[in-house]
Amino acid sequence: MLSENKIIKKLNAGFHICVGLDTDRRKIPVYLQNDDDGIYKFNKAIIETTKDIAAAYKINFAFYEKEGAKGFEMLSKTLKLIPSDVSIIGDAKRGDIGNTSLMYAQSMFEHFKIDASTLNPYMGYDSLAPFINYSDKIHFILALTSNPGSHDFEKLELKSGKKVYQEVIEKVNQWNREKNLGIVFGATNLDELKENIGNFGNLLILLPGVGAQGGNLEKIVRVFKENSNNNYLINVSRALIYADSSKNFANVTRKILEDYNQKINNINL
Amino acid sequence: MLSENKIIKKLNAGFHICVGLDTDRRKIPVYLQNDDDGIYKFNKAIIETTKDIAAAYKINFAFYEKEGAKGFEMLSKTLKLIPSDVSIIGDAKRGDIGNTSLMYAQSMFEHFKIDASTLNPYMGYDSLAPFINYSDKIHFILALTSNPGSHDFEKLELKSGKKVYQEVIEKVNQWNREKNLGIVFGATNLDELKENIGNFGNLLILLPGVGAQGGNLEKIVRVFKENSNNNYLINVSRALIYADSSKNFANVTRKILEDYNQKINNINL
Repeated sequence: MLSENKIIKKLNAGFHICVGLDTDRRKIPVYLQNDDDGIYKFNKAIIETTKDIAAAYKINFAFYEKEGAKGFEMLSKTLKLIPSDVSIIGDAKRGDIGNTSLMYAQSMFEHFKIDASTLNPYMGYDSLAPFINYSDKIHFILALTSNPGSHDFEKLELKSGKKVYQEVIEKVNQWNREKNLGIVFGATNLDELKENIGNFGNLLILLPGVGAQGGNLEKIVRVFKENSNNNYLINVSRALIYADSSKNFANVTRKILEDYNQKINNINL
Repeated sequence: MLSENKIIKKLNAGFHICVGLDTDRRKIPVYLQNDDDGIYKFNKAIIETTKDIAAAYKINFAFYEKEGAKGFEMLSKTLKLIPSDVSIIGDAKRGDIGNTSLMYAQSMFEHFKIDASTLNPYMGYDSLAPFINYSDKIHFILALTSNPGSHDFEKLELKSGKKVYQEVIEKVNQWNREKNLGIVFGATNLDELKENIGNFGNLLILLPGVGAQGGNLEKIVRVFKENSNNNYLINVSRALIYADSSKNFANVTRKILEDYNQKINNINL
């Protein structure tokens, strides 16, 4: 792993919660919903109250793209609010043939100047390479996701005896020559986490699924601590940013984030 | 398949070539490269000279997103040029957890008002459902892609004896209750096409990979004709739109498209 990387520095400082900015106009406080700049103002309040205790911010492109060109402007403006010592993960789950993937990588890293990406492995190595080649960025490749559909393909058993997602973990480890790769591993899969954590190598692990999706924060953290693995980044979106709908919402978000951080640091073996 | 669907009507009328608008500023004629509206003007010329003989247009989101908010404006303007009887396929290979996938679907169908999508199956059914539920739209799910990386995961053999991509084809057939689904099957996989065409059911087949990627148009079409399957849509991007770099480029594109159409219709068993 890149020891100088911003995410690693935050993990080493004891911060493991990534704040997911899945900002949906219909879910933000009512007084901001009809404001043209409402999404930006909501993000600004969340970032200003959490930036010193967040491990990273994850920006889900879908929530911005939905509003077209205007949404992309709000995305650009939001990115400028994030302090330079905190990483931004561009969550867009890309994967396409090489020349197209290169365009997406250029969008992510040259246009938006984002620090890390999420990628879909289905199309294989050459669909990921244009991202991986940005060796000073971190790339999280989907292995086992937090949703029910993970049973459809990810958990199928291969002739080799491995599951499809285990083959992904093995290949991502092989592709990790620049030590800039990670995987997405849904926090709803506690048993699979215990079974596979020994094969994570140096990979950085991004765990969505705590909060609205039902993953249990304490149980997840305990598995990492029991395995002396500090490379975990737990994303929380809805349970953090929509916890309160008053004008005081951002302070409520900060309080919950403080509680998460304290809970993680208080887990002793 | 939706008999009233615009794509089906074009296939029934003998048009099988989808024009891929993968418009890259560095590859368009020099006189348009430094024009702020160059990508739009390029698309306009291509659409105006081909709209009566194209089966559909495929818009790759990467090439527009790369230019940020400005790119999305060019995408919106381009979409307005396409006649209402010709389908637009939004090629973005989406796939995310349900609430996020819904945002992408709303972007595609409510904001951009596109007719069809491409989707990545890795995360399973609930990641695709928000798209599939737009039952008057057609959704092409990645099965076997045209790139070398298709060996990494798509072509792995499962314990059941099927390949991963064959499991995708089987499940997509099961999910095709509204008869609005298709698959992406790379034209570079001729042997696999012959082996699997009997399992395509009512699915519409989108075949990228002819032209720059090396797929052979005539051999592909012959397989479909031999199997009395008319549900094939062959996408050509680079070999069509960048065939000429003079001010006359769009007329050269039309000529090549006419040749493709004639070649397809002249293939007799």
